[in-house]
Amino acid sequence: MGDGWFREAVESEGVAFSLAIEQKLHDETSDFQHIEVYQTSHWGRLLVLDGCVMLTERDEFFYHEMMSHPALFAHREPRKVAIIGGGDCGILREVLRHSNVEQAVQVEIDERVTRVCEQYLPQLCSANNDPRATLLFSDGVEWIRSIEEESLDLIIVDSTDPVGPAAGLFTAEFLSAARRAVAPGGIVVQQSESPLLHRDTVIAPLHQAATEAGFDGIHTITFPVPGYPSGWWSATLMANGGDPRNFRAEDSADKDFPTQYYNADIHRAALATPELLKF
Amino acid sequence: MGDGWFREAVESEGVAFSLAIEQKLHDETSDFQHIEVYQTSHWGRLLVLDGCVMLTERDEFFYHEMMSHPALFAHREPRKVAIIGGGDCGILREVLRHSNVEQAVQVEIDERVTRVCEQYLPQLCSANNDPRATLLFSDGVEWIRSIEEESLDLIIVDSTDPVGPAAGLFTAEFLSAARRAVAPGGIVVQQSESPLLHRDTVIAPLHQAATEAGFDGIHTITFPVPGYPSGWWSATLMANGGDPRNFRAEDSADKDFPTQYYNADIHRAALATPELLKF
Repeated sequence: MGDGWFREAVESEGVAFSLAIEQKLHDETSDFQHIEVYQTSHWGRLLVLDGCVMLTERDEFFYHEMMSHPALFAHREPRKVAIIGGGDCGILREVLRHSNVEQAVQVEIDERVTRVCEQYLPQLCSANNDPRATLLFSDGVEWIRSIEEESLDLIIVDSTDPVGPAAGLFTAEFLSAARRAVAPGGIVVQQSESPLLHRDTVIAPLHQAATEAGFDGIHTITFPVPGYPSGWWSATLMANGGDPRNFRAEDSADKDFPTQYYNADIHRAALATPELLKF
Repeated sequence: MGDGWFREAVESEGVAFSLAIEQKLHDETSDFQHIEVYQTSHWGRLLVLDGCVMLTERDEFFYHEMMSHPALFAHREPRKVAIIGGGDCGILREVLRHSNVEQAVQVEIDERVTRVCEQYLPQLCSANNDPRATLLFSDGVEWIRSIEEESLDLIIVDSTDPVGPAAGLFTAEFLSAARRAVAPGGIVVQQSESPLLHRDTVIAPLHQAATEAGFDGIHTITFPVPGYPSGWWSATLMANGGDPRNFRAEDSADKDFPTQYYNADIHRAALATPELLKF
């Protein structure tokens, strides 16, 4: 980055993505990871964890909207929501746009990520003081294991890549615990990397793990995320009973909050399975 | 690229995309542009024109399928097709997968692009010897102006960025000539850059130019192209009568050729307009 660019290289795929930087605003090593914030020239502020782009202000809406609204509108009445990971609070913000949500608990292992975002990326944290929000800082795997059975409607797993601290979130054991934690009709949604780069290494194994965990309906949606490797990303919806492709289309079309990417047509579009994702 | 990477920077957007390179295979300056071919480490061969990624073997299917099949299935019986630009021949290959196509003329200004692709990217040129194919090397704008009125069913404009040799392809004057060249019910489809980066500079002006040119139905579709800036791309369909969102869904679902991204569900999905593209 000495040349005025932040660069993330995925050596195993021979591809790199770079953003022009004006200034480094923050640099710390927490108990869990290396946290950096940059001011870019054209993408607003940039959050980097362990060298990987987490988000820019310019494109964060793709990921946060698509990790939230498809799952929320796929549930008939999502009242109790948990977010595992999600320390930047962007998903929490989107979840709390839904008036039927009564309670949203965010369980992030690294409190420093949240505190850094509160300082440098306040628009992501605009819902942190919502009375329906609870911010916990602990291990999401342990937390999911410990909570009462069937006590949630929706779990959103907003992890980093399935290596390091997030590896445990991609196992059948974790998903079994998540399935027990949601009531019948409940949904678990998990970020599942790039459909182009991680089909065989992440998406297919996650479907396998979700099947082992006893989920009935498992469906991967796709959407653009310009700042992530390949620019094309996925999330995998898993239903504890029912088909997560069904959604409250009228409620979605009548949503009373603004979005930049998501709408009811985009919801339907994201459900389409490209040829290369047909297993 | 001295460090083993090819890098394309879009300075005006503060973003760059890089691919790890094993070898430069070809480098020439034609009468029109600088043409390079590289062997990458993970993306197969890479074609570069004037420093911009045109395609890699790994991801070319996104662009070539989505520039072809949505337009071909949106026409009730596409028999006569012209491709303006498209010198790598990838769109010609996709067009000729349709058995109702009787004639496909590719009008590329730079013969060297095609010859280089025939040598280094032969899988793109697999349809070049199809008896239905005609390869012309001349100015597409002049050619469209010169042909008989209503003599085509479909025109696919596969241009480089709307600067330099391709600038003329984004004008109302060219689009008027293209509209006159297609029969009633005919369709013109044009690549229209990134929905995130070029909404106001390319997509909106193209809609305006198409309206001035007298097209009735104008609709922009979106799809991933990992190698292009932002990883998210668009094409704009323009109908000389009718709505280009209507398509032969049964024929698409029953297609007798393989694809890696496109299918009937993806066709419908690509038609969805994200919030940020609602003008």
